[in-house]
Amino acid sequence: MEFSAFHQDPTGHARRGRLTLTHGVVETPVFMPVGTQATVKSLTPADLTDDIQASIILGNTYHLMLRPGADLIAQMGGLHQFMAWDRPILTDSGGFQVWSLGELRKIEADGVRFRSHIDGREVFLGPKESMEIQRKLGSDIVMAFDECTPYPATPEQARASMELSMRWAGECRAALPVNDRQALFGIVQGGMYPELRLESLAAIQAIDFEGVAIGGLSVGEPKAEMLAMLDALAPHLPVDKPHYVMGVGTPDDLIEGIDRGIDMFDCVMPSRNARNGTLFTDDGKINIKNLKHFDDPRPIMEDCSCYTCRNFSRAYLRHLFMSKEILSARLNTLHNLHYYCALMQRCRDALDAGQWPAFRDAFLQRYRTRA
Amino acid sequence: MEFSAFHQDPTGHARRGRLTLTHGVVETPVFMPVGTQATVKSLTPADLTDDIQASIILGNTYHLMLRPGADLIAQMGGLHQFMAWDRPILTDSGGFQVWSLGELRKIEADGVRFRSHIDGREVFLGPKESMEIQRKLGSDIVMAFDECTPYPATPEQARASMELSMRWAGECRAALPVNDRQALFGIVQGGMYPELRLESLAAIQAIDFEGVAIGGLSVGEPKAEMLAMLDALAPHLPVDKPHYVMGVGTPDDLIEGIDRGIDMFDCVMPSRNARNGTLFTDDGKINIKNLKHFDDPRPIMEDCSCYTCRNFSRAYLRHLFMSKEILSARLNTLHNLHYYCALMQRCRDALDAGQWPAFRDAFLQRYRTRA
Repeated sequence: MEFSAFHQDPTGHARRGRLTLTHGVVETPVFMPVGTQATVKSLTPADLTDDIQASIILGNTYHLMLRPGADLIAQMGGLHQFMAWDRPILTDSGGFQVWSLGELRKIEADGVRFRSHIDGREVFLGPKESMEIQRKLGSDIVMAFDECTPYPATPEQARASMELSMRWAGECRAALPVNDRQALFGIVQGGMYPELRLESLAAIQAIDFEGVAIGGLSVGEPKAEMLAMLDALAPHLPVDKPHYVMGVGTPDDLIEGIDRGIDMFDCVMPSRNARNGTLFTDDGKINIKNLKHFDDPRPIMEDCSCYTCRNFSRAYLRHLFMSKEILSARLNTLHNLHYYCALMQRCRDALDAGQWPAFRDAFLQRYRTRA
Repeated sequence: MEFSAFHQDPTGHARRGRLTLTHGVVETPVFMPVGTQATVKSLTPADLTDDIQASIILGNTYHLMLRPGADLIAQMGGLHQFMAWDRPILTDSGGFQVWSLGELRKIEADGVRFRSHIDGREVFLGPKESMEIQRKLGSDIVMAFDECTPYPATPEQARASMELSMRWAGECRAALPVNDRQALFGIVQGGMYPELRLESLAAIQAIDFEGVAIGGLSVGEPKAEMLAMLDALAPHLPVDKPHYVMGVGTPDDLIEGIDRGIDMFDCVMPSRNARNGTLFTDDGKINIKNLKHFDDPRPIMEDCSCYTCRNFSRAYLRHLFMSKEILSARLNTLHNLHYYCALMQRCRDALDAGQWPAFRDAFLQRYRTRA
């Protein structure tokens, strides 16, 4: 893996970058659509490349290990070949999903014991297991196995959780040494305590990871707290490595993240909200099931170049949603992911042109005024 | 509308034809994918034109009149513009769906009174209403409003039902006179009684319809009875008009239908079965959820050129189906409709080449042997 950052905004931390991975080049800042079960829900690889212009997607280790299983995917030639996606893939470690199981899981020294949500069988997942599974999946970027610190947490809880994650981080790198196929990213934890976050960042930097991720955000805390954590970390993030904030967020969150030096994002929001009829525009969100769209001949967003906006009216999209048609999920997802990926292209263009502060301010002003 | 039949198979009734409609040319024999609620479930117009190469689709008057309503569709520029489909559309009359409501409907002299399956409100639909709605939808081919004779029916029941449909047929033509935008097809009824079928055909031919449809088949009768009705009608169908058998059927039904002079088919089977995991091949049907496909790297059908077969293994398609992924419905539907439309292309090629009997026999032999 190679990474270079350039066109740093002189007024702050925002920057353009380029990530070269086994399956291709990723221009940053970048948004990664989430492909949980070896599919970005409702979309084909052709939709993602030709229309959405996604350059990298995310796969979920937890879901794939349970069904259809990492061994089958390896036997089918790896996740890329299995799902017919030939561009880069980042896989998460499974830690976040296992952590989300709540009562169904028990955290032990070497990992987490849990029951599958599909058939109830007992499964164990730790740093070693996660590295082995992600190796079988064959992703371009492997994420370290960590514990997502709950919110809220006391300083003691947050420290213990962070220290466990830092120990596991070292075990992940030991299990997956530097190689020329798969990069490994470490994850900063530390709850909502800046000093723990900085301590965690130092621990991650002491290990030879190819990238630095920030985990444990967007877990229920107020937005101001999330931004405060990014503010605390921004001046200390290594300039020569990509910065990835996990599971964030809304379009304005992405702008705020870029402004704090973040290069990579993922979130289920654009795809999940699409299936619920919530669509993103520069003027904020719209809910397509609202009666006011019944006879609206306009597209979701006038200047959007996605297949949905090029061809269909809000009236038609509302009809599909009200009729519970499968095509509703698909056309809505196509628009929302196109919107997110096009927004990242606009950010890259603004950075290339040295126009970041003006672009940022104009976007946030318009998005938040009408939302 | 213009129609010409050519390359008649000299050994029987099969024939090539070409139908010129307001929105384009349709080469026959043709299969029409069903787009019930202004969408062929899970597919975009681009899928239907670029991959499936559908030249005409079917829309359902009953569903569209209830939701979103014919007036909205007219206001949005008609069904073509509403759903962004610029090729021909045939709309049914609503009669079959209303008839299928059973207890919820009451047949009267001038039509049928029924309760909407969506919100229970009372609606009346007869020949005049159906013509008015289909005029608003703007379809290329309008179907006459008729009663689908139940199966089984006594000779008296079948005659009364057929005579009602023939009276309504005349009222449809009166309500929608010959014009240069929309063709109107009459529908032959008569249950499973050949003499009633021939009497009905004579009544339909006495009215100036642009095409002849055969209704009331594939309603629960043994396949031999269905074919017997087609056999009885075949020598008497007008050679200068297109022949359409409604709601039929399996791939071998289509071959049998073409052999009996049928030019046009529609059926929900390829799309509905796709969503249930049943996929069509020349060697019969396969059920993708079967465990034997778990690690099968082969496509559904080796020599199929559809997007699904070009890109995905049975193992992947089984995974999507078992995981209840939306993409499962889509990739399966894409294959099945591609299969049906490609089968019609193969039939047209065989007819053009004067090879119909050999093609028919080889197809039926292979399809039925392994099914």
